[in-house]
Amino acid sequence: MRIAVVGGTGREGNGLALGWARAGQEVVLGSRVMERAVRAAEAINAAVGRAAAAGRLNRDAAAAGEIVVLTVPYDAHETTLKDIQEAVRGKVLVDVTVPVDPAKPRHLRIPPGGSAAEEAQALLGPETRVVAAFQNISHAHLDHGGASACDVLVCGDDADARQEAVRLAGWLGFRGLDAGPARNARVVEGLTVLLMGINRRYKVKAAGIRITGLPETPSG
Amino acid sequence: MRIAVVGGTGREGNGLALGWARAGQEVVLGSRVMERAVRAAEAINAAVGRAAAAGRLNRDAAAAGEIVVLTVPYDAHETTLKDIQEAVRGKVLVDVTVPVDPAKPRHLRIPPGGSAAEEAQALLGPETRVVAAFQNISHAHLDHGGASACDVLVCGDDADARQEAVRLAGWLGFRGLDAGPARNARVVEGLTVLLMGINRRYKVKAAGIRITGLPETPSG
Repeated sequence: MRIAVVGGTGREGNGLALGWARAGQEVVLGSRVMERAVRAAEAINAAVGRAAAAGRLNRDAAAAGEIVVLTVPYDAHETTLKDIQEAVRGKVLVDVTVPVDPAKPRHLRIPPGGSAAEEAQALLGPETRVVAAFQNISHAHLDHGGASACDVLVCGDDADARQEAVRLAGWLGFRGLDAGPARNARVVEGLTVLLMGINRRYKVKAAGIRITGLPETPSG
Repeated sequence: MRIAVVGGTGREGNGLALGWARAGQEVVLGSRVMERAVRAAEAINAAVGRAAAAGRLNRDAAAAGEIVVLTVPYDAHETTLKDIQEAVRGKVLVDVTVPVDPAKPRHLRIPPGGSAAEEAQALLGPETRVVAAFQNISHAHLDHGGASACDVLVCGDDADARQEAVRLAGWLGFRGLDAGPARNARVVEGLTVLLMGINRRYKVKAAGIRITGLPETPSG
């Protein structure tokens, strides 16, 4: 599958892109700066030993992807969505955004639209199916490239789109779980702030969450 | 310790009370109906084989407890808080309430005050220290009485009060974790709705959450 990672030169986006390239997928890295996208793609190709990644401007990356993953800071969320709006029409957009306030990153922020993912869905309209996923996965886990005990909770209003994101998680070695409607993204985005607090309070680097009480391989 | 469980004849409250009684603590069960409280206390005493529990009206139970645990449906939350307000002054109130809408229990509900726990704190004032905890622990785990892989996330604005709730969790065989300020209760309360959806979707009974990436016994 050809996966576009918009904002793919940031740590989270780059880690996701590298993971999917390692898993044999084709990746198109997007950036606001063409040269940075190309450089990041070259680094991924060097790491995996094949031409798995290409670098493009965000909008062109989104146009090239069969599925589009959005990994930008919340302050660039709306602008980036408007930039890629036409390019993602008819596709699934996987929104990784956490609505953190850069001035108060430790403070849980409820954005005007309830969650970043719900804001994305409202802005993009019904022709693009938005799911929220991967917000709780620290780039530290992605960088190490191994499976992890963390789960990826996937929220969105379209069940098939949720299953596509569950599959993306599986390629990275994570268990993806269908966590229900888009509205639940408020919880999953907020968990990221709570986990960052646990990192500080318990002096760890990459606290995550796992859902207990499920059979080992849920059928979804 | 003498622990009051207001709403202690409901399934969650009763399970918590039984667990603390098993752990050697003294429990005062509260109910709106004296007879029900007394009967529930007798059942606990029969189960643990000693006079660990007593039944009282909610307000009297709260007055008798050194720490007060509130386990009532959200629709009874405000009324019950007003009833016990004087009795809990100067104490720690552990709020287990999830703001579920009985008409739409599957739908994440953000209450006017952000979370049930924040509403409790606002209503009770600064002389009572409110913490949110145990909302994610299914009564199924409590009934089985054993340790579980689930964690208890504790939120509140007073760090010492959070540690008291962490201790209450430990007596039940759960790992309690300091999950930060009261505002984070929005996430933890909402998680309960998300977990109930996972129960339905994956056909399990008691999905819970565990924080990964911590040392086995966090020092807190």
